Amino acid sequence: MSAVMKTEGEPMLVRRDEGGVAYVTLNRPAQFNSLSKAMLEALLAEFDAIARDTSVRVVVIAGEGRAFCAGHDLKEMRANHTLAFQQELFRLCGKFMVKLTEMPQPVIARVHGIATAAGCQLVSMCDLAVAADVARFAVSGINVGLFCATPSVGLARNMGRKQAFEMLVTGDFIDAAEAQRRGLVNRVVPLEELDAEVARLTTAICAKSPVALQMGKQMFYRQLEMGLEAAYQMAAETMACNMMTEDAAEGIDAFIGKRKPEWKGC
Amino acid sequence: MSAVMKTEGEPMLVRRDEGGVAYVTLNRPAQFNSLSKAMLEALLAEFDAIARDTSVRVVVIAGEGRAFCAGHDLKEMRANHTLAFQQELFRLCGKFMVKLTEMPQPVIARVHGIATAAGCQLVSMCDLAVAADVARFAVSGINVGLFCATPSVGLARNMGRKQAFEMLVTGDFIDAAEAQRRGLVNRVVPLEELDAEVARLTTAICAKSPVALQMGKQMFYRQLEMGLEAAYQMAAETMACNMMTEDAAEGIDAFIGKRKPEWKGC
Amino acid sequence: MSAVMKTEGEPMLVRRDEGGVAYVTLNRPAQFNSLSKAMLEALLAEFDAIARDTSVRVVVIAGEGRAFCAGHDLKEMRANHTLAFQQELFRLCGKFMVKLTEMPQPVIARVHGIATAAGCQLVSMCDLAVAADVARFAVSGINVGLFCATPSVGLARNMGRKQAFEMLVTGDFIDAAEAQRRGLVNRVVPLEELDAEVARLTTAICAKSPVALQMGKQMFYRQLEMGLEAAYQMAAETMACNMMTEDAAEGIDAFIGKRKPEWKGC
Repeated sequence: MSAVMKTEGEPMLVRRDEGGVAYVTLNRPAQFNSLSKAMLEALLAEFDAIARDTSVRVVVIAGEGRAFCAGHDLKEMRANHTLAFQQELFRLCGKFMVKLTEMPQPVIARVHGIATAAGCQLVSMCDLAVAADVARFAVSGINVGLFCATPSVGLARNMGRKQAFEMLVTGDFIDAAEAQRRGLVNRVVPLEELDAEVARLTTAICAKSPVALQMGKQMFYRQLEMGLEAAYQMAAETMACNMMTEDAAEGIDAFIGKRKPEWKGC
Repeated sequence: MSAVMKTEGEPMLVRRDEGGVAYVTLNRPAQFNSLSKAMLEALLAEFDAIARDTSVRVVVIAGEGRAFCAGHDLKEMRANHTLAFQQELFRLCGKFMVKLTEMPQPVIARVHGIATAAGCQLVSMCDLAVAADVARFAVSGINVGLFCATPSVGLARNMGRKQAFEMLVTGDFIDAAEAQRRGLVNRVVPLEELDAEVARLTTAICAKSPVALQMGKQMFYRQLEMGLEAAYQMAAETMACNMMTEDAAEGIDAFIGKRKPEWKGC
Repeated sequence: MSAVMKTEGEPMLVRRDEGGVAYVTLNRPAQFNSLSKAMLEALLAEFDAIARDTSVRVVVIAGEGRAFCAGHDLKEMRANHTLAFQQELFRLCGKFMVKLTEMPQPVIARVHGIATAAGCQLVSMCDLAVAADVARFAVSGINVGLFCATPSVGLARNMGRKQAFEMLVTGDFIDAAEAQRRGLVNRVVPLEELDAEVARLTTAICAKSPVALQMGKQMFYRQLEMGLEAAYQMAAETMACNMMTEDAAEGIDAFIGKRKPEWKGC
């Protein structure tokens, strides 16, 4: 377990690894796990470490306390009221959000409570999200005169543009079921089944070939930004390379031989 | 109230402002509010005026009579059967549709009846849409040998490509509930509650900071056309600039102080 | 009827034309209609021929036997374990998938059974898809260590990215109703009504002007890859050209005259 210390001496970010899963927990419950500058720096450092850690097969992001994450730290933002601070803050935020898509491992948001503003953005930028039925989602910056610009990037890539625009200009909440219908979360379960549902996903992912997952995730986000022909060219090359890995040979031979594959991760 | 005169002496476009809301009504009920060349010119002029009018916080587009809008004026198109006229007509149409996304104010379609062809396109290109449950939507040009090319641009940016393609090649109607499921409209209510539902949206939007809405809307449509990294860079810069406005400072201070913010619009 | 011979002397691809509809059936039921290199070459050749055949108004792709299509031929891939073979295989696959969008005629997938991996991709890349309620869909390559990279291109252009990502990393099936909700298929009916439902679509399409459909389909996929302004410019030009065809003049005159149009296809 690694932990980045809060000024009070407690970790603001807690990481616990178990069975190939890195559980990263935002641990500022009194501040609704808000993404202060220090929290973003801690997240970037921790995710850098996880990216290099081949023992980690999948990452779960969770929040301590009642909220999942309530966005940025408004008090900190007001206490540092310079353009330079805001630019650095939002640059760090964007860097971390893009990093989620660049991680070699799939990243799952475990959303047990409210996810607002940058907290909603965090959900939108994870590869997968599992929510408790009591979770609620909003991009509420507009209520304090601050349009959720960076959250809109992830939000509009998860749901229809009119649906995203309405949330951005009204600041209204949607519930977990609506978030699932729109594509912001993959699965919704009662709160008491949230960990079991996350475990079903992590177990499924841990049973797959790490090299195939890594090649696939990288290709997935790159092809999303390409035209159809370029996307197919890159995807075709990725599949040919993937096919030449030992894991693909083993996987197909095991399938044909009706036995369980044994991955080597190469 | 401003009004563009129809040849008969009646206004083909009626604008009424109230409480920060500009209600723009297509007023060719006998022609199902079809988008003739003159109507498109009138809309462009009126929206130019609204864009410069800082007293307008949100725009509502509605239609007089039974239909919301039945597309272009087929009789006019046949009466001016030259390539030059058609090019000018569709160029004007595209210019107006793009302009909707460039307006500093959010634009809401109030859809009480059928919205077909360019009328359906108009709904698709508004930022938000509220429909009566009796409203129906189609891109029916294919029934007269004219594929709804310009409508397809908006339609395919509101719903899945297979869903849009089916509408385009069959000309079939979808009802309001289906339009909502697909993302073409935000809200569906009984006809008698349509104005109240539109008012709920306009009231919510009028309570927000105009400068935040304006910066946000402009950023929103620009980031949609960018790759993830470029989108985050622009969005981060937008948020930093937004944060330095007086409204954001006021909004956050009011939030922390648990009082209602007073916007200055700068 | 044309047919490409299988090595055993039976056609691996069967084409039957009737009433302007080309029915192309994958005929390797014992191999669940897997897309071997020879099958992809046969499909490319057959679709080349169909593209030049003005008697064909719409294409239906179906599968013989229990499955619609179970993806690539894993045994063939293992028996030809060179990078060059895999590159050629996936290059052919991508070429055929892109070709579906370039065909002058709409292409409908008739999905009566499972569609997995490249079979699911085939559904995703058809313009339209009609499924039996017993059909199921998965991109299951990850189960054999081979991430469904090329299928992800089509899948992520049919449904939300989180929904696509979950299917890609879990390999899990979704049923036909879920596929419809996500936008992967247009219509779902009981198996015994599948042909009637496909016929409803083909009949609707055959009643339209071929030149309008051809201009429209080509424009549709091109505008999807453009920014809003460029898309509108191209779409406006397409509509102006379409308006100058004889079919558009006839279609509008027939509409105004309340009679049935007679298409000339030009």
